[in-house]
Amino acid sequence: MSQFAITAQNKRARTGIFKTPHGDLITPVFAPVGTQATVKTLTPEQLKGINSSLVLSNTYHLYLRPGDELVRDMGGLHKFMQWHNPMLTDSGGFQVFSLSDTRKIDDEGVTFKSHIDGSTHRFTPEKSIAIQENLGADIIMAFDECSDPNDVAYSKIAMERTHRWAERSLKAKTRADQALFGIVQGGVNPALRAESAKFISALDTPGVAIGGLSVGETKEEMYTTLDVVVPLLPENKPRYLMGVGTPEDIINGVARGIDIFDCVLPTRLARHHSAFSPKGRLNLMNATFARDERPVDESCDCYTCQTFTRAYIRHLIVAKELLAGTLLSIHNLRSLIRLMEDIRIYIADDSFDARVPELLNKWSNNAKRNKHEGHEAHKG
Amino acid sequence: MSQFAITAQNKRARTGIFKTPHGDLITPVFAPVGTQATVKTLTPEQLKGINSSLVLSNTYHLYLRPGDELVRDMGGLHKFMQWHNPMLTDSGGFQVFSLSDTRKIDDEGVTFKSHIDGSTHRFTPEKSIAIQENLGADIIMAFDECSDPNDVAYSKIAMERTHRWAERSLKAKTRADQALFGIVQGGVNPALRAESAKFISALDTPGVAIGGLSVGETKEEMYTTLDVVVPLLPENKPRYLMGVGTPEDIINGVARGIDIFDCVLPTRLARHHSAFSPKGRLNLMNATFARDERPVDESCDCYTCQTFTRAYIRHLIVAKELLAGTLLSIHNLRSLIRLMEDIRIYIADDSFDARVPELLNKWSNNAKRNKHEGHEAHKG
Repeated sequence: MSQFAITAQNKRARTGIFKTPHGDLITPVFAPVGTQATVKTLTPEQLKGINSSLVLSNTYHLYLRPGDELVRDMGGLHKFMQWHNPMLTDSGGFQVFSLSDTRKIDDEGVTFKSHIDGSTHRFTPEKSIAIQENLGADIIMAFDECSDPNDVAYSKIAMERTHRWAERSLKAKTRADQALFGIVQGGVNPALRAESAKFISALDTPGVAIGGLSVGETKEEMYTTLDVVVPLLPENKPRYLMGVGTPEDIINGVARGIDIFDCVLPTRLARHHSAFSPKGRLNLMNATFARDERPVDESCDCYTCQTFTRAYIRHLIVAKELLAGTLLSIHNLRSLIRLMEDIRIYIADDSFDARVPELLNKWSNNAKRNKHEGHEAHKG
Repeated sequence: MSQFAITAQNKRARTGIFKTPHGDLITPVFAPVGTQATVKTLTPEQLKGINSSLVLSNTYHLYLRPGDELVRDMGGLHKFMQWHNPMLTDSGGFQVFSLSDTRKIDDEGVTFKSHIDGSTHRFTPEKSIAIQENLGADIIMAFDECSDPNDVAYSKIAMERTHRWAERSLKAKTRADQALFGIVQGGVNPALRAESAKFISALDTPGVAIGGLSVGETKEEMYTTLDVVVPLLPENKPRYLMGVGTPEDIINGVARGIDIFDCVLPTRLARHHSAFSPKGRLNLMNATFARDERPVDESCDCYTCQTFTRAYIRHLIVAKELLAGTLLSIHNLRSLIRLMEDIRIYIADDSFDARVPELLNKWSNNAKRNKHEGHEAHKG
């Protein structure tokens, strides 16, 4: 029996159900990032309040602190952080490659130094799976190598290593209750991406991830890559575009057949006083909001917008009150989750494809994207 | 018609109802401190969740930022911060005297420099009342001068000025919907305190505050001062002991006839990883809690204790996640509010006085108190 069922399709976009031991995921879905077993500044109760369904946590960070064995002994990640809905962990690959200059990559694995205390550690596919089994997320990732997308020669080497590592990850897996996804790599080279899509699709996994995007390539390159990769993926497996994205990337991703997204952007923007709105990102620290009695977004149904004025949030920011980050995190995450809820309805009533221009127009001012904006690769 | 009705009395302790435009306060009551129009890291929803009734905000801070006129124009403090229950503002006196070395005090008022930008400002009794009328709290304070409690000569001068300023504050008041409390001063000198208690009691105010305690005197001096002051206060007015206290101070204060308390201690301790517990304050950063699956306090009914382990909270602290401060603030505030709920029941069933030794024993390990611990006088 497949874990995934498509319930409606509109051109390449689809909506479906992915079964997990912690409940059904309705796709397409946007996952808030809870790097260190917490979506920064929010309680699980607040996450539920914005209708989050899937939460991502970072293997690299949790391995270093508090340690995956501690999390296992405390009953696993769901119990530890009290998130009793579906969870996903990444493989640690991206963070190892983005957080350390002192790494050494060989065919067997990667040696790296902790960004916390400089101590030396080693990840292999087997180690990554063992850690993820200790953490116990519902969806786990094969260990992969993310290349500089514009370095074709290196992208080929990294892709081939990612393929061997995907096979080893699959072989290393022992828990039947976790869904392992392989990861398509290949930089922005269409031939490599096609080769990787075919290889990863052929593996016996319940889902496929697309890695190595939102890491410095242009938006056009990202969309072109999706146009190459997605048609080569099996219809009956969910497709997860890692570390993406902005509202614009989500709309364009769904239109190209993506089912799962995650991104640190909503919470990171929130901590830097920036809020999604239909008129573009608002920097709430701006003096223009000092006496603005409107909510951040008049069309938003979140606690923040239903309760507080821009003037109050600006005051909290200027007074360096941490509540500002909490309130804007609630709003920004809810904005993307609400966008996803709308998209699912539009797919179900067969109007999504026709609405893409309208949706892109509405959200285009929120579209600016910086290198690595979507992934959790901070040193702090 | 009096705003205050005593519903039960047990020796000197009493429980009662104080009517405000934003609802009835059941006394004795502990007020969380929301210095800058926010109880740090908590939403109003979370404050309601721990059964907060009265919240204090600081006139000095709000005058400087965002400005009392802005708060007035945004509909007042209740609407601005979305706290629709009773609120109290202090007079700004304590902060002016504790945050600035460059102040100049004269009989007319105080000139001081902002701790934010060094700009020069002047508070008078009339100005303090005007600011507090703009903020719009239910309970407001007369402008007062807090002396070094051990300097008898200065305490006398400050007390006499406080009396003149109380009369001027009362005269300056224009809003009928706010309850102005006069403040008893006099350091730790019994004769001065008695004189001040009589003077302030004679004013036509719906309540009386006791200032100048928890500012460096010993606990014995504080209790002795209360023993002098409280018997001289009118029975039919609520008595507010400003900036106090620890659980021990609250128990001892109620036993001496105090009705209202406020203190930054619960939230400040929370941000420094410290939690109230029946076994004394726990420093949750301690490695001993790394694998501790118990809640912070097994007897506590708060969201934090009902949901998370000490191990998880320690992880958040070590990983520098702000959620730790939120969760411990919820617990620490709930601890004092729950203590107050218990105390009210004990007064009503006439058992409080007999239970004081048991209560003090339970909470004595939480009793250490530092200079200025209870008041909001930080520079940040």
